[in-house]
Amino acid sequence: MTQMKTQGNDNLIYGKNAVFELLRSDRPVDSVLCSLKRTDGAYHKLRALCRERGVVLKEVAPDRLNRLTDGAHQGMAAFTGDFVYADLTSSIEEQRRQGRRLFYVLCDGLEDPHNLGAIIRTAECAGASGVIIGERRSVSVTGTVVKSSAGATAHLPIIRVKNLSRALEELKQAGVFVYGADMDGTNFRKIDFSGDVCLVVGSEGKGLSRLVKEHCDTIVSLPMRGQVGSLNASVAAGILIYAMEGCGREQEV
Amino acid sequence: MTQMKTQGNDNLIYGKNAVFELLRSDRPVDSVLCSLKRTDGAYHKLRALCRERGVVLKEVAPDRLNRLTDGAHQGMAAFTGDFVYADLTSSIEEQRRQGRRLFYVLCDGLEDPHNLGAIIRTAECAGASGVIIGERRSVSVTGTVVKSSAGATAHLPIIRVKNLSRALEELKQAGVFVYGADMDGTNFRKIDFSGDVCLVVGSEGKGLSRLVKEHCDTIVSLPMRGQVGSLNASVAAGILIYAMEGCGREQEV
Repeated sequence: MTQMKTQGNDNLIYGKNAVFELLRSDRPVDSVLCSLKRTDGAYHKLRALCRERGVVLKEVAPDRLNRLTDGAHQGMAAFTGDFVYADLTSSIEEQRRQGRRLFYVLCDGLEDPHNLGAIIRTAECAGASGVIIGERRSVSVTGTVVKSSAGATAHLPIIRVKNLSRALEELKQAGVFVYGADMDGTNFRKIDFSGDVCLVVGSEGKGLSRLVKEHCDTIVSLPMRGQVGSLNASVAAGILIYAMEGCGREQEV
Repeated sequence: MTQMKTQGNDNLIYGKNAVFELLRSDRPVDSVLCSLKRTDGAYHKLRALCRERGVVLKEVAPDRLNRLTDGAHQGMAAFTGDFVYADLTSSIEEQRRQGRRLFYVLCDGLEDPHNLGAIIRTAECAGASGVIIGERRSVSVTGTVVKSSAGATAHLPIIRVKNLSRALEELKQAGVFVYGADMDGTNFRKIDFSGDVCLVVGSEGKGLSRLVKEHCDTIVSLPMRGQVGSLNASVAAGILIYAMEGCGREQEV
């Protein structure tokens, strides 16, 4: 199910949305590969964007892209420079300076790049401040993550930290209330998520790690009515992220 | 639950090519019967494929296969676990009989089996009545869907219909209010989803088809604050399914 690219292709982005988002972002781009016909409208859009950015556009055979990707390239791919992670302290200061709510999502040991990508996408759509991941026991921002995020990695700061507990302490000192998503917590509908918040989501199989859980102010749960008893990690995160989005709207608008 | 796996001969595949193809495909397999000698090369090939798929291989006498088939079994046969879909009319009647709310999720042209699986999983967790899919332009319940649903396909009725518009008409005649998820609709937070409801979600790229959209009573949207402008299909569905779950709780409990 999981399509992991080889390490050498970590900087490869593919698919129309992902490549266009990359070119429109501030991120460095090494080169762009394209197998579209010159009669295709997307080809001209791509060429214009590359020209604007001063990026080399190489026209290649579809086979070349098929070999580089899982096939879902839609005629284009791009090599980026290394992903540039953001810094937590600077991000908090920047949010404060702009008078914006602190609204972070911290992923504790997510392993599936599709889940991380979908969570980054949801966080970006909900207007979150950033997504925090750990250096160890976690997928980093690979090409698959970028593609699953539909290009959101180009717009939302992704903060990679050595120590998740220390990051949570820093957030709490900044006045952020930390909600851990786990079983046997308070029904999320009973919670007022207004104010500065951080949602902590655990790994697909194991949930929150003990140490991270101890750093949460409150554990929140989604009501489960059926037999299966748990949601997909990115769906559960999505429901909670939008619950937090809803509570924050009045603050800023 | 209304779903039953029938091991009638409809689900019997036999002959070397047919059985090998089945095992290499995405289709579910319940068990494999084999009357070949262990010195036969095909026996070892079959055993390896069964092991790979995690399927039980039963060694039987040739007579057993002769009785099950017309004799052209070449020493092997397999029971497929082809999915048994539920019927919409019966499902509505069953919900009514049990005094339960009608709460359906209709998928209009979903193409990604992981998304369909995740939506079925979320619907089951939220206590929905069933998930409705179309026969055409839609992924059906394959092994990948079953796996992505974390087993929810065994607990929740999946209804496959020839004509999605007709299914929506039947639901509306039963008093169900139909909400289509799409851009430029009413913010979902302004909606009271109580009562009998059906959520209609569109395909990953194209959203709702024109005809299906015309059958929706109201179009609902999720607020979008960022640059990306759209969520993953199963995440968007999850947020709306749980909004509907929340509005239905008081009715039954």
